[in-house]
Amino acid sequence: MNDPAPPGFDPGAPVRSGIPEHGRVPKYYAVKAHVVGLIGELGDGDPLPTERDLALRYEVSRETVRQALRELLLEGRLRRQGRGTVVAGPKLEQPLSPASYTEGVRRQNRRPGRNLIGLERFPCPAVLAADVGVRTGDPVWHMERVLLADDERVGLESTYVAVARVPRLEADFEPDSSFYSYLRDVVGVPFGDADERIETVLATPREALLIGTPPALPMLLIHRLSRDAQGQPLERVRTLFRGDRFSFTAHLGRRPG
Amino acid sequence: MNDPAPPGFDPGAPVRSGIPEHGRVPKYYAVKAHVVGLIGELGDGDPLPTERDLALRYEVSRETVRQALRELLLEGRLRRQGRGTVVAGPKLEQPLSPASYTEGVRRQNRRPGRNLIGLERFPCPAVLAADVGVRTGDPVWHMERVLLADDERVGLESTYVAVARVPRLEADFEPDSSFYSYLRDVVGVPFGDADERIETVLATPREALLIGTPPALPMLLIHRLSRDAQGQPLERVRTLFRGDRFSFTAHLGRRPG
Repeated sequence: MNDPAPPGFDPGAPVRSGIPEHGRVPKYYAVKAHVVGLIGELGDGDPLPTERDLALRYEVSRETVRQALRELLLEGRLRRQGRGTVVAGPKLEQPLSPASYTEGVRRQNRRPGRNLIGLERFPCPAVLAADVGVRTGDPVWHMERVLLADDERVGLESTYVAVARVPRLEADFEPDSSFYSYLRDVVGVPFGDADERIETVLATPREALLIGTPPALPMLLIHRLSRDAQGQPLERVRTLFRGDRFSFTAHLGRRPG
Repeated sequence: MNDPAPPGFDPGAPVRSGIPEHGRVPKYYAVKAHVVGLIGELGDGDPLPTERDLALRYEVSRETVRQALRELLLEGRLRRQGRGTVVAGPKLEQPLSPASYTEGVRRQNRRPGRNLIGLERFPCPAVLAADVGVRTGDPVWHMERVLLADDERVGLESTYVAVARVPRLEADFEPDSSFYSYLRDVVGVPFGDADERIETVLATPREALLIGTPPALPMLLIHRLSRDAQGQPLERVRTLFRGDRFSFTAHLGRRPG
């Protein structure tokens, strides 16, 4: 490689992004920077040259090329398509706001959907009781759904809610619809407010299987505790989003004080 | 391994977390589930048995143990200490709110700090001009700081702001202090509101070097565009937080409509 030029200025990245100033540039990272440049010249869905071609072009081993592509796949800059690798579109931007999955996905002209994995009742363990507003041992639902955008599996959601809140959940809830709409329109319990926590985790093998991602792909995990309009505990939700396909947005209002 | 029991019920995790129902449990994952159980019995900072002991105990290869520990390190359940591996404390919870780094860290009884990496002026590129409220070519500052909690390096922040806004930044800003306090108290420009976007990315080699993390550790990246109290563009910020050390919290108010 004669020309390990740093990638172009990116105001979302630190100056000289990725290039250690007082260290050697790892070979795979120089290849990655080149491929990022290549991605910039291509359009969404355009195929990347083969690993073999890239190895020849940059005069490195195929293993070095693979390491560079692996990171770009994990970061969602590239995606596999059939046997090849193509340029991925931008991440879906999802607002951090209640009941927003359907709206957020629609706003980006994608079609939201949900596939039911399982719905089961079980006696509430002590650790969950306060969150869903029941006593230990009272029945709670656990509903698990895969989240879809244009039929692509992009996330996995687990909802825990008291059976006393929604006794007919199994009978009259359509799993491919919004649970908040059901609560509001059918059960008559409007959403009030919620606390959320977001972190990055690795997909477990089961989660990777259900979402169809490589195992150990970094995911964004959102924990939500929500209350009804009277401030009473409503549900506990755990939603896992593909880290290569999603980002979350928030508006921060004026700072008090 | 005679006893690959699933980890105990965790209301933050789906039922049968991690164990594929219609697939084989990867060997490393069974070890990981065992170690998670072990972590639950130990306290923060307690040492884990050696890789060799774990390999003997679970009758697997040391490579299998290493794969399990690697994921737990990336997820922040374990951390390296000297030559050993110890149980990590809980992640720092940082509120998604303006100017909150200092307050958020203090609220958890940790001492916030910042180390200046670099402060430079450069002519504003077109792609950044609107964000900081200047014309292309006008001078802007780029300030890069490592974020600390109790002297531990936990993040890296890049701030872009027009020189016209803070002409004396180099002379009278103390890099180990809050930039928002400086803007408000010294410059007389109170913070107004901001749009944030959060995603997961991999640390670049340079970032990993500056923060002192393993390369390719999943990080939480927050992009912020903020405005002053009059709604005029103020700064563009890119903050990278160790994914194994941080989670972010938000309160979602009542849903309109």
